[in-house]
Amino acid sequence: MDNNSRTELDQLGEFGLIERLAAGVQKFQENTVKGIGDDAAVIDIGDQYLLMSTDMLIEGIHFDLSYTPLRHLGYKAIAVNASDIAAMNGIPQQVTVSVALSNRFSIEAIEELYEGINLACESYNIDLVGGDTTSSLSGLMISISIIGRVDKNKVVYRSNAQVNDIICVSGDLGGAFMGLQLLQREKSVYLANPEMQPELEGKDYIIQRQLKPEARLDVIHELNDLKVIPTSMIDISDGLASEILHICKSSNKGAVIFEDKLPIDGMAFNTALEFNLDPVTVTLNGGEDYELLFTIKPEDFEKIKNQPDIATIGYITEKSAGANIVLKSGNSATLKAQGWKHF
Amino acid sequence: MDNNSRTELDQLGEFGLIERLAAGVQKFQENTVKGIGDDAAVIDIGDQYLLMSTDMLIEGIHFDLSYTPLRHLGYKAIAVNASDIAAMNGIPQQVTVSVALSNRFSIEAIEELYEGINLACESYNIDLVGGDTTSSLSGLMISISIIGRVDKNKVVYRSNAQVNDIICVSGDLGGAFMGLQLLQREKSVYLANPEMQPELEGKDYIIQRQLKPEARLDVIHELNDLKVIPTSMIDISDGLASEILHICKSSNKGAVIFEDKLPIDGMAFNTALEFNLDPVTVTLNGGEDYELLFTIKPEDFEKIKNQPDIATIGYITEKSAGANIVLKSGNSATLKAQGWKHF
Repeated sequence: MDNNSRTELDQLGEFGLIERLAAGVQKFQENTVKGIGDDAAVIDIGDQYLLMSTDMLIEGIHFDLSYTPLRHLGYKAIAVNASDIAAMNGIPQQVTVSVALSNRFSIEAIEELYEGINLACESYNIDLVGGDTTSSLSGLMISISIIGRVDKNKVVYRSNAQVNDIICVSGDLGGAFMGLQLLQREKSVYLANPEMQPELEGKDYIIQRQLKPEARLDVIHELNDLKVIPTSMIDISDGLASEILHICKSSNKGAVIFEDKLPIDGMAFNTALEFNLDPVTVTLNGGEDYELLFTIKPEDFEKIKNQPDIATIGYITEKSAGANIVLKSGNSATLKAQGWKHF
Repeated sequence: MDNNSRTELDQLGEFGLIERLAAGVQKFQENTVKGIGDDAAVIDIGDQYLLMSTDMLIEGIHFDLSYTPLRHLGYKAIAVNASDIAAMNGIPQQVTVSVALSNRFSIEAIEELYEGINLACESYNIDLVGGDTTSSLSGLMISISIIGRVDKNKVVYRSNAQVNDIICVSGDLGGAFMGLQLLQREKSVYLANPEMQPELEGKDYIIQRQLKPEARLDVIHELNDLKVIPTSMIDISDGLASEILHICKSSNKGAVIFEDKLPIDGMAFNTALEFNLDPVTVTLNGGEDYELLFTIKPEDFEKIKNQPDIATIGYITEKSAGANIVLKSGNSATLKAQGWKHF
């Protein structure tokens, strides 16, 4: 290492760092179909593909235990990993969970975390097959690795969206982000005056979206029943805009989406207004809803158009057109990612 | 959670905690052959078994960057995971690497870490297929998950050792532990007087054993060539005594080993004496050599007796006899684990 050169992490950002590190990676195994660069790696196991993904959650970066029950944290840790397998059109089957924790945590606290982990495993039929537990000097860290399967002809990458494909989103957006804003506001209020009661009444849905999101495996089963294989797919962890740009970049295409088609959740919309936030910005950049963003061939539109839980929000264009949103005013704006930044 | 009850982590220890957490785990997937409780999980993928294992390495707990070059740390992180796959008689194929780091680290430092990771992947023919990079509030954390394969008739568990099976160890022991003692001594000397030069001359082997251990995949290939399938196997991460006790417990057996058969490394032996440490204690409890401990059927002894890299150190007994070591004096002592404790 040249001691004269020091590049700070935030100069590159997370995606830049991953790209730079991925450049040094070699391939030795014939059965590795797809390595770094999608929601999960794809490995040939004969009749099917094995999918493999991993995520790390760090206290103070990804979660705040002052308003996150450990049971919900455990559930979420499994759900967000299952979501990565769903994003490849696959079904998760086994998971390993590693936990590092300081002596601030009691056995009972860890058991609460694992109650949530086990509950999520039960919800999604996932087997917890291994892990590691160790101490940390400070705080709680959770690392999850998950494997799943997909039929070879059904695997969906980020990179295969075609011009005129229809852009779809499952469920609704913005709830998880507004839930987080609420929880953070109540934390500030509490810190300023511990006598104050939290004002979270009637906000259950968006708080649950933040604290206990679900992997949309039901959508994967639904698409399978409808005989629709998306041409590309990704889960919405960083925010809709960021994920659309990922699909555009991987597929070497552009996109148009329409403001009036965005499936913003009603409670998230109203709460955004209360917070003086633009609901469209919240919908585009909120993140953590773990809904699925996918593209389908135009001829599959008939199959999904009456599905209540799937919104069609735009279509894929040539790369040269860029990625844009058509606003209600009729004006167009360039899509920009302002997702979560962990550096 | 009952707020009145708080059990401290160190009351249970790591193995106790794992047992307690494992008790709450359910099984949903038919293809899960073996979950928690061995070096790797075993999953049926048709023609073969898939093996899956994971490990977390935390700065200040598992490594000290004041004497651990990042390149070596990266190498070691892969090697110790590959070793878990070897311990099932399998061959590792794909790995994911997650890294959390504070802004104390530059891009160049992370690239150095990944140089070591990539070098180990090249040594073992493993594909780096995914991971996660994120910031931490303090220090460096690395989480690795690895998958590999083994023929179904060749998978080796900890639990199948039989009475009279011969206990074998690959390579030599004690080096990694004495390497660590040396590095820690030199660190203390340096902290007391930064002008002092480190006295590590002639100690390359044991320092390398600590900083850059190897997974003994060569032994797995060797056993395969010799047509020997061990009856039980584990890798020596926590120390020989601890691992023998794991095999005894899992197999519901006892064991006898002989002091004069222990393959202590000569440099480790001499360095132990310099440090006023008992070389036998170092050999039994040192840990981190990542050699393989395995048992073979008595009739396979002829096949391995002339292998220079495999020592036969004792045999399996009935459970009621316990686990004992026969000392050079002729006396017997009960084997006790004093391995690394991370709580």
